[in-house]
Amino acid sequence: MIKVGIVGGTGYTGVELLRMLSGHPHAELVAVTSRKEAGLALADMYPNLRGRVKLRFTDTLMADLSACDVVFYATPHGVAMKDAPKLMQAGVRLIDLAADFRFQDIGVFEQWYKITHSCPELVKEAAYGLVELNREAIRKARIVGNPGCYPTTMQLGFYPLLKAGLVDTAQLIADCKSGVSGAGRKAEVGYLFTETADNLKAYSVSGHRHAPETLARLQMMTTEKVGLLFTPHLVPMIRGMHSTLYARLTKKVSDEQLQALFEQSYQNEPFIDVMPFGSHPETRSTRASNILRLALHRPPDTNTVVILVVQDNLVKGAAGQAIQCMNLMFGLPETAGLSHLPVMP
Amino acid sequence: MIKVGIVGGTGYTGVELLRMLSGHPHAELVAVTSRKEAGLALADMYPNLRGRVKLRFTDTLMADLSACDVVFYATPHGVAMKDAPKLMQAGVRLIDLAADFRFQDIGVFEQWYKITHSCPELVKEAAYGLVELNREAIRKARIVGNPGCYPTTMQLGFYPLLKAGLVDTAQLIADCKSGVSGAGRKAEVGYLFTETADNLKAYSVSGHRHAPETLARLQMMTTEKVGLLFTPHLVPMIRGMHSTLYARLTKKVSDEQLQALFEQSYQNEPFIDVMPFGSHPETRSTRASNILRLALHRPPDTNTVVILVVQDNLVKGAAGQAIQCMNLMFGLPETAGLSHLPVMP
Amino acid sequence: MIKVGIVGGTGYTGVELLRMLSGHPHAELVAVTSRKEAGLALADMYPNLRGRVKLRFTDTLMADLSACDVVFYATPHGVAMKDAPKLMQAGVRLIDLAADFRFQDIGVFEQWYKITHSCPELVKEAAYGLVELNREAIRKARIVGNPGCYPTTMQLGFYPLLKAGLVDTAQLIADCKSGVSGAGRKAEVGYLFTETADNLKAYSVSGHRHAPETLARLQMMTTEKVGLLFTPHLVPMIRGMHSTLYARLTKKVSDEQLQALFEQSYQNEPFIDVMPFGSHPETRSTRASNILRLALHRPPDTNTVVILVVQDNLVKGAAGQAIQCMNLMFGLPETAGLSHLPVMP
Amino acid sequence: MIKVGIVGGTGYTGVELLRMLSGHPHAELVAVTSRKEAGLALADMYPNLRGRVKLRFTDTLMADLSACDVVFYATPHGVAMKDAPKLMQAGVRLIDLAADFRFQDIGVFEQWYKITHSCPELVKEAAYGLVELNREAIRKARIVGNPGCYPTTMQLGFYPLLKAGLVDTAQLIADCKSGVSGAGRKAEVGYLFTETADNLKAYSVSGHRHAPETLARLQMMTTEKVGLLFTPHLVPMIRGMHSTLYARLTKKVSDEQLQALFEQSYQNEPFIDVMPFGSHPETRSTRASNILRLALHRPPDTNTVVILVVQDNLVKGAAGQAIQCMNLMFGLPETAGLSHLPVMP
Repeated sequence: MIKVGIVGGTGYTGVELLRMLSGHPHAELVAVTSRKEAGLALADMYPNLRGRVKLRFTDTLMADLSACDVVFYATPHGVAMKDAPKLMQAGVRLIDLAADFRFQDIGVFEQWYKITHSCPELVKEAAYGLVELNREAIRKARIVGNPGCYPTTMQLGFYPLLKAGLVDTAQLIADCKSGVSGAGRKAEVGYLFTETADNLKAYSVSGHRHAPETLARLQMMTTEKVGLLFTPHLVPMIRGMHSTLYARLTKKVSDEQLQALFEQSYQNEPFIDVMPFGSHPETRSTRASNILRLALHRPPDTNTVVILVVQDNLVKGAAGQAIQCMNLMFGLPETAGLSHLPVMP
Repeated sequence: MIKVGIVGGTGYTGVELLRMLSGHPHAELVAVTSRKEAGLALADMYPNLRGRVKLRFTDTLMADLSACDVVFYATPHGVAMKDAPKLMQAGVRLIDLAADFRFQDIGVFEQWYKITHSCPELVKEAAYGLVELNREAIRKARIVGNPGCYPTTMQLGFYPLLKAGLVDTAQLIADCKSGVSGAGRKAEVGYLFTETADNLKAYSVSGHRHAPETLARLQMMTTEKVGLLFTPHLVPMIRGMHSTLYARLTKKVSDEQLQALFEQSYQNEPFIDVMPFGSHPETRSTRASNILRLALHRPPDTNTVVILVVQDNLVKGAAGQAIQCMNLMFGLPETAGLSHLPVMP
Repeated sequence: MIKVGIVGGTGYTGVELLRMLSGHPHAELVAVTSRKEAGLALADMYPNLRGRVKLRFTDTLMADLSACDVVFYATPHGVAMKDAPKLMQAGVRLIDLAADFRFQDIGVFEQWYKITHSCPELVKEAAYGLVELNREAIRKARIVGNPGCYPTTMQLGFYPLLKAGLVDTAQLIADCKSGVSGAGRKAEVGYLFTETADNLKAYSVSGHRHAPETLARLQMMTTEKVGLLFTPHLVPMIRGMHSTLYARLTKKVSDEQLQALFEQSYQNEPFIDVMPFGSHPETRSTRASNILRLALHRPPDTNTVVILVVQDNLVKGAAGQAIQCMNLMFGLPETAGLSHLPVMP
Repeated sequence: MIKVGIVGGTGYTGVELLRMLSGHPHAELVAVTSRKEAGLALADMYPNLRGRVKLRFTDTLMADLSACDVVFYATPHGVAMKDAPKLMQAGVRLIDLAADFRFQDIGVFEQWYKITHSCPELVKEAAYGLVELNREAIRKARIVGNPGCYPTTMQLGFYPLLKAGLVDTAQLIADCKSGVSGAGRKAEVGYLFTETADNLKAYSVSGHRHAPETLARLQMMTTEKVGLLFTPHLVPMIRGMHSTLYARLTKKVSDEQLQALFEQSYQNEPFIDVMPFGSHPETRSTRASNILRLALHRPPDTNTVVILVVQDNLVKGAAGQAIQCMNLMFGLPETAGLSHLPVMP
């Protein structure tokens, strides 16, 4: 059994790690830390864990974490990088669900996150945790920077088209919609039920941190210059993310060829579902599971491919993807502990 | 007092007409018809009307309608056109909330709605009921084709840009999100609470009837060829519509100039709110009112204007706009009966 | 025009006062105060007011308030009582939407609210603002303590039965359900969308402040000893309150007699709708209006009357009721400014 | 592997059976039937099953069902009883999720369901499928009548009190709240998103079928005459049921004794969670799992116990409980295939 620690287990990605890891056949939770909640039983904060998870939150002590094989950081940006050198020394692997290890270009990270990076040398060896596009690097990594939720959908949606050189890379548009859990478990007026229910709005249209992250990764897929316009929206649902991606075709290609391109790209992927051409995936068809589904459209009289991508932002967009990385890093079956069927209705 | 009839008052646009007309200072409800519900008190179907609206649904008799000054058709497509000639003969004006009189090109109507038009000669004189862009024609009209909800947002959002010749008209994109009431009050599994709550999906991406309606109207604003990619989405909210519009700039223009262009275009409009540049309008800020709000953005490193437009799909997108047309047609103050403040939270 | 001030206009009862007072034919908003938001335009906090309410929040200065005819306190408990003596001296009337003036027994107030009352002498003359049961006192009052939302439904539901001496007063049960706006506009994790959506729970079952308030008022209706079991529940809706009341019959009475009793009790009330016996009122049938609806049931083989009561917790349960009091206090028509029809769907 | 058939797999209890059985370690789905959808892939109706469940709906042929070890009926009332004799002859066990085998008194069944029972002789041997209260009978049964969702909560909540003879059995009150999925997957206007969201109402207060079912089972727990007042409410959530139960104490008993009574009653139950005295269980803490949680309260100055009971109406209230029965009937571990942790948030 792999000994697993979680730092910052009080947020939504934390409780999802707990839900999935507590049923993982090859992992054992040994330490879940929270400075603020030290001493509290996990099940007292998250009653869904009652009777199944006996652990209590502990203070964040390196002693405890050093005894782990791997530690997940479900913390704010800037926390994991502080512990990373010590964990590396202790031979413990680290999967960060925040942004500390997502950017190879530390300048971009520092500009967008307003934090000085404390271990740039470790960034170089860190692997970006988008398994389907970076499997080999993750397998060998000591540190994984788990992708943002929006970037996961954008990269998996655009990848086959960029790789095949079929679209105008300078004018990619991603109109994305997220459930409220994407904002985390923070006491802010803007995320109250009374402020978000029966309501929809765009936010951060003039600049969101997931844009530079995505842009950097998309740029690795092509030699053409990539331009990305990313518009996030807040939707009254607990979980779920729907990205509507627009790319202008620059080459002649049939619907069948487009469909075949995507199906071949993801044919061996256990968690990617390329639906029939012209389908309309629903976010709930991925609820509480690690599946990402996508479908292609080509509206009449436009020379544009529309890619509809859905996932559960807390699972494939966060905790599930992180466990998928862990499985890879420890030579386990990639789907271990991640076989939950989506919950519908 | 203007004598008002409503045909098909059982749907959501019907009940909104009733809510607003029952408080209208210059209008008097004299007949509300429904073949299926004849005899039923309106307040028994819509308890919000209890104690305020005493009428009962009557069968649809021309005798009753002929006694009206104006009749609203809140019916399925194809109903209003059947009655139109008789109403014209009787000197009664007609406002159709369905599509019968929205298209000047009958061929396009027939292609998309699969109905043969029964009075093409009346189509010619009908006015398209988007007040802000067609005020004079509506004022003189005997027949008004009230716009679709999505087309209202798209036209008002793109209009200043097309008029000013600032954007690439061939590549307009409208990514639109609607509350479930847009689907009407129909017993269909797809619109059950259990199917739509905590869920989001796109629909009709390969072709929606509001695309040709919008395209035809946008084309009237410019001599350039217009191309429109329209993607509607179903969002778990009762009311509310949010259209995210994308247009590529073809001329050099500052943010201030863009903002000024929109403010000037709508400076005398009582129901259009051009918010400060960079704002994020929320759908609920228009709930149950006839206001449409919009805001402009210009994401960095893209040469694209993003216009965010919100409205209540049942009010400015349907019943409110229809009353606004009635006010114009009868020389009343345009805001009469439409002064409700949006309901927040 | 009556000059109106609002202290604490940033919460949900505040914005509802603003929505309704800004359209009131006999009232004029002259000062809206908020220590925290002084200087901010009201419409910047509540975009539904854009273009209609030009005021800015001001700091809470007695000078401004003294120029008013009446001041509404939409503040936390304990604020209004501090200003009350000064306002009385200045000849300004006060309507408190918090609990400061709801209790004649100051000991009970102090026990439940953990605040020492600073002006017990003014409590004596204050009127309890439940118009239907206390109209004459309110008409003459300088100070009104506006009822809690739950207590409004419980008192109006039980009143006819207690008055008529038909039920076992010692065993009244009120199982009440409230939308989330009842908790106010507070940044607390427990009221986040992600914590309250698709979820229901009871709270404060072992003791809620609205129990002693209601008990004291019910006790005034009868010489029998009253016992009340009150169970509040939090429901995933923005607004709306549904109280399910249970009372055991102690006398023989027919369904018709029960119905007649309620209809007679409220026959002249513009805001109370006694629905047909056996109806099931919906909370949304009162949304955004000052109407309270109720219906009676008598389940088979039980000797119990079930009263179903619905209202909009922010309107009849708070801001609307307060305006109804103001109308009475100033000799205006009781329905002035309160004629909004409920918004459905 | 047990060979499992499902008749009527298109409803919500059907899809939940599919979700849980497809991951069951000892069960194998061999036939899922639907007259209306024969030929359709299950995953085309329920996209959450894509890639995991390959079966197609078949027409309901006895040949297929006879090859099963057990058949679940997730059909309307009156269907299972038609097939029961043939299945018994073929040696196939039957678990009915409808009401056909819930009532020992066929007269009561026929009165409430308006159906003549076609195999009264099989009713006698059928076991009522509430495992915690009827384990031995279920273990030996060929036919199980799976309980209704509301009755499950009421029986498990009242049982320890009735058994111990502590309460006035003549005046039990159950005020119950259910998510919309309890109404099934039916195209009815009343269950549209637009009709149920942001809304709450009671229904069937004058008589609901789950009252006689519950009454009959409660009566078996005591020699005293039982009287039950049951009030169901429709709540805007997809899943989840919260029953608030009221029972008057007739004997002196401390809070500690009450708590001990419940803890002892359910101490060996893997799916019943007796929470600490005074807790407020949330429906979401059971979402998508077979757990039922309850907590006791004793409001001050009333001699009444309040029991708060929550479950997922589709799982412990339907499909999960049915699988729990199957496990018992086939000598499997009772928790097999039912170990899903509740999904929060």
